[in-house]
Amino acid sequence: MTLDLSTIEQAARVIRAATRLTPAWPSAILEQITAVPVTLKCEQLQRTGSFKVRGALNFVANLPADGVLGLVAASAGNHAQGVAYAASLRGLPVTVVMPSFAPLAKVNAAKGYGARVVLHGLSLEQARDHARTIAANEGLIFVPPFDDDHVIAGQGTLGLELLAQAPHLSEVLVPTGGGGLLAGVATAIKESNPAIRVIGVQAAAMDGVARSFAAGSLIEVPPRRTIADGVAVAGPSERTFTLVRRYVDEIVTVPEDAIAHALLLLVERSKMVVEGAGALGVAALQSGLYRPKGPAAVILSGGNIDINLIGSIIRRGLVDAGRYQQLSIQVSDTPGELAAITAAIASEGGNILEVEHNREAPQLPVGVAILDLVLEVDGPEHFDRVVAALTAAGITRVGSVSDTRSSPAARTRNDRRE
Amino acid sequence: MTLDLSTIEQAARVIRAATRLTPAWPSAILEQITAVPVTLKCEQLQRTGSFKVRGALNFVANLPADGVLGLVAASAGNHAQGVAYAASLRGLPVTVVMPSFAPLAKVNAAKGYGARVVLHGLSLEQARDHARTIAANEGLIFVPPFDDDHVIAGQGTLGLELLAQAPHLSEVLVPTGGGGLLAGVATAIKESNPAIRVIGVQAAAMDGVARSFAAGSLIEVPPRRTIADGVAVAGPSERTFTLVRRYVDEIVTVPEDAIAHALLLLVERSKMVVEGAGALGVAALQSGLYRPKGPAAVILSGGNIDINLIGSIIRRGLVDAGRYQQLSIQVSDTPGELAAITAAIASEGGNILEVEHNREAPQLPVGVAILDLVLEVDGPEHFDRVVAALTAAGITRVGSVSDTRSSPAARTRNDRRE
Repeated sequence: MTLDLSTIEQAARVIRAATRLTPAWPSAILEQITAVPVTLKCEQLQRTGSFKVRGALNFVANLPADGVLGLVAASAGNHAQGVAYAASLRGLPVTVVMPSFAPLAKVNAAKGYGARVVLHGLSLEQARDHARTIAANEGLIFVPPFDDDHVIAGQGTLGLELLAQAPHLSEVLVPTGGGGLLAGVATAIKESNPAIRVIGVQAAAMDGVARSFAAGSLIEVPPRRTIADGVAVAGPSERTFTLVRRYVDEIVTVPEDAIAHALLLLVERSKMVVEGAGALGVAALQSGLYRPKGPAAVILSGGNIDINLIGSIIRRGLVDAGRYQQLSIQVSDTPGELAAITAAIASEGGNILEVEHNREAPQLPVGVAILDLVLEVDGPEHFDRVVAALTAAGITRVGSVSDTRSSPAARTRNDRRE
Repeated sequence: MTLDLSTIEQAARVIRAATRLTPAWPSAILEQITAVPVTLKCEQLQRTGSFKVRGALNFVANLPADGVLGLVAASAGNHAQGVAYAASLRGLPVTVVMPSFAPLAKVNAAKGYGARVVLHGLSLEQARDHARTIAANEGLIFVPPFDDDHVIAGQGTLGLELLAQAPHLSEVLVPTGGGGLLAGVATAIKESNPAIRVIGVQAAAMDGVARSFAAGSLIEVPPRRTIADGVAVAGPSERTFTLVRRYVDEIVTVPEDAIAHALLLLVERSKMVVEGAGALGVAALQSGLYRPKGPAAVILSGGNIDINLIGSIIRRGLVDAGRYQQLSIQVSDTPGELAAITAAIASEGGNILEVEHNREAPQLPVGVAILDLVLEVDGPEHFDRVVAALTAAGITRVGSVSDTRSSPAARTRNDRRE
């Protein structure tokens, strides 16, 4: 087959009944930040919690009518759920191989769609090799996560939907890992309206598509941890890369702190739960690493984030935004000093989240204590005002133990505290 | 004026341009739990993050054309933002009085809409008294949070929207505090289609409307803490209560653990961020405290939850669902024992989140240590299987220090760990 607009339109007809038309929702806060209207395509509300179900449904729909014994896929997340759901609709048995570290919730989600889950290997590569072995041994069909025309065409239906929902777009930001979503959406959009810019967004920690795009040839990067675990892929395939080169205007990479900050913005301001990969486009806009020239759309590709991680990612986002600040104050351990300190902080609207009173730090003179505070503030400038209020109130020994002995200057510890 | 369907239809025309048509979104997980189709009316995506803006807009639209010097409102949350936004659209100055404990994010949100924020008092009642004083001194108009026909009619527009979006409903669940939303929505729905049941849902911790409804007369309850802080209201007003008695079929109350559990379900399964009050209807369905007989709609009334609380509420929900379990095992402090324990836990698919090795607990014999584990499991039954696997592996001294000396029986500590 040749993958083009008509293939994607065909895929859209095939998958319509089994998918949801997810909202294209305006973001007032991102419009405020970028000075252009921004539409969020809310694919975290898709069945199975991500766009991956589109490709899986189209793949299954194009299988032969008879003789298929079952499917097998390797994935720690969205692809597994997509394939399991698509197979269940057609009554096909499905085996999902997950690395042995896969979160319980993802194992249960795949089982919930009737999949047999096999835990195998310490990496996604090992799981994939095992899945191919199972496919060969048991005569099952292996469903590739992105290197397949039917899968890419299925993902491309998201681009068609977006065009119908938000007809006056200037540019579209697409989360990118192996390039399946990007290739499909770029094909749908550019063959419909070449004037719309298509921008792929990758995590800087794993930027195989960005490097390949810059070099003009396939480049693979070694595995690294990223909050955007859903797009932690070594690089594009020949198939996705061909379409990316033909149709994509630009690839932007974003650092981890920008991704955490974007997740925080989506939860706090947009009331939406997305996974790290799903927040890449928002990270590019919020950080200013990509500056749209006209009405922009951002694809929120999925929402399957490990529930145990949400709290720590939010906290990291607050730290990265300068809204959690840590402060150590040397106090003389006399009555009233804590009251004076908290009054000074309150006078500038700082909010004390944690207080620890430490009389036993090493090298601490007798009669002196260290007050460790965690403050919630608006950001770094607000924190500076709080420190100034402390100084004005005569509380000058602000900083760490070692700092205060040499100088009374304020010091901030903006540590990652996960 | 008389508040009826035509008043609410008029309000809908008035506020349309300044509000968003929020999605009415199907919930597969709640359909699975209740065995009926469940629609979530996603008012957390409304401008200002809650339905309160509807009443505020309708109130402002019905002010005299001239001579209004400004508005004043008292609120620690949604009402403040709604009034500030509505006033800003008409260019009216607005003062919001918040209790001095108001979260920084809510203060900033009101300021973001151009409000003057006055922090005053230790309770909402004290803030409200101060707001009325400001209104009297400065000639401003006080905007009541619910005891006003224009406000109630504005909230009722949510009911009309829902009927248009989900035409085949059997019942509607409405979060309830002072009864403004409930009165408005019930009027809209019952005057359109009396066959649809309208159910108010309150936090059991503050159940003034439920008690009043049962007694047939106004009852106020004392302030108590609840996760659903947005509906922590002493009781209905005469005005809201009259409509509630006329149009509401039933009031259900839900305990705090059900609210936390509902927030967890919405975040994890529906990818939606709502505040405690917004999750009341989901809590009623998920807990089984209300069992719908046909297609049901749940109003998610708002999403303005303090970001600092999300992590701990999720954690509490996981504890309440039995998915976080704590386990103490007495070990002989010899090599290999930890390996045997972790292997047994892994064999049943338990996930170890935290390990603490304690050799210095009081009353602990020499050579014996306590291993404190936090496990992630599917729920209580899964936890029992993990404990059985430990027992089968010969690790029988499971429980707390005091328990193990008398009996080797397993013991769970399902503490709230916030």
